[in-house]
Amino acid sequence: VSSLKKKFRSSCIIASALDLIGDKWSLLIVRDMLLFQKKTFKEFVTSDEKVATNLLSSRLKMLESLRIITKQKLSSNKKENIYLLTEKGIELAPLIMELVLWSDKYVRAYNDNMNTLENETDKQSLIISTQDGYRAFTQQIIQ
Amino acid sequence: VSSLKKKFRSSCIIASALDLIGDKWSLLIVRDMLLFQKKTFKEFVTSDEKVATNLLSSRLKMLESLRIITKQKLSSNKKENIYLLTEKGIELAPLIMELVLWSDKYVRAYNDNMNTLENETDKQSLIISTQDGYRAFTQQIIQ
Repeated sequence: VSSLKKKFRSSCIIASALDLIGDKWSLLIVRDMLLFQKKTFKEFVTSDEKVATNLLSSRLKMLESLRIITKQKLSSNKKENIYLLTEKGIELAPLIMELVLWSDKYVRAYNDNMNTLENETDKQSLIISTQDGYRAFTQQIIQ
Repeated sequence: VSSLKKKFRSSCIIASALDLIGDKWSLLIVRDMLLFQKKTFKEFVTSDEKVATNLLSSRLKMLESLRIITKQKLSSNKKENIYLLTEKGIELAPLIMELVLWSDKYVRAYNDNMNTLENETDKQSLIISTQDGYRAFTQQIIQ
């Protein structure tokens, strides 16, 4: 924790959050876990954004040190590390949803290839079903 | 617009938004405008995060090119550029609010100096009053 102190640019609530998770990759790792239920290094590395393995390693370590994710080995597979979101990570869902909605409305004009939104349910129920789906997934994994 | 194409890492809605506004400074400029109604280079540069002037210049240009902000001179002051959020920028309020709520709950443990939240009204009315307040401010400025 003490090594993090120097990271903070100011006492601003917004800036402090960005200082922790505002880099180019952290939220995409959370996205891969929360929305696509990815859980291994191998799965993260295959994402379309083609993150460099050293960057991915460092971001996973950082997210783990912030307790946004946990790393563990399962008794059924002692070789591979399994990464799961904590509740702190799962609670990034509303932020990610707002990013999706703003992007769908305003960024599409700049990126012709952008995926379309499949779900047309309301925001709040989509957030809750995503979070509940992820919690059920983690229960299934760690058992 | 075409020069932006190369910026996008993938077709993901979330990654594309981060490719445009996910750098270390853009959201803090939007914060300064939306929450503190700052409107000049001089005002932005005095923020606690002490952004370097060349970085601030480049981010203002970038936000202007994305039409998240406008730059104009007022008839009452022909020397100074006045920066105002467009509706596209004002609609980042829900995203910023989610960042505030998550940070207040989970980042505080890492930054002892973090500001406390003053407002305890509900999220949706705080977003709307912030946006309406900013719209009224811009009307007052440009008249």
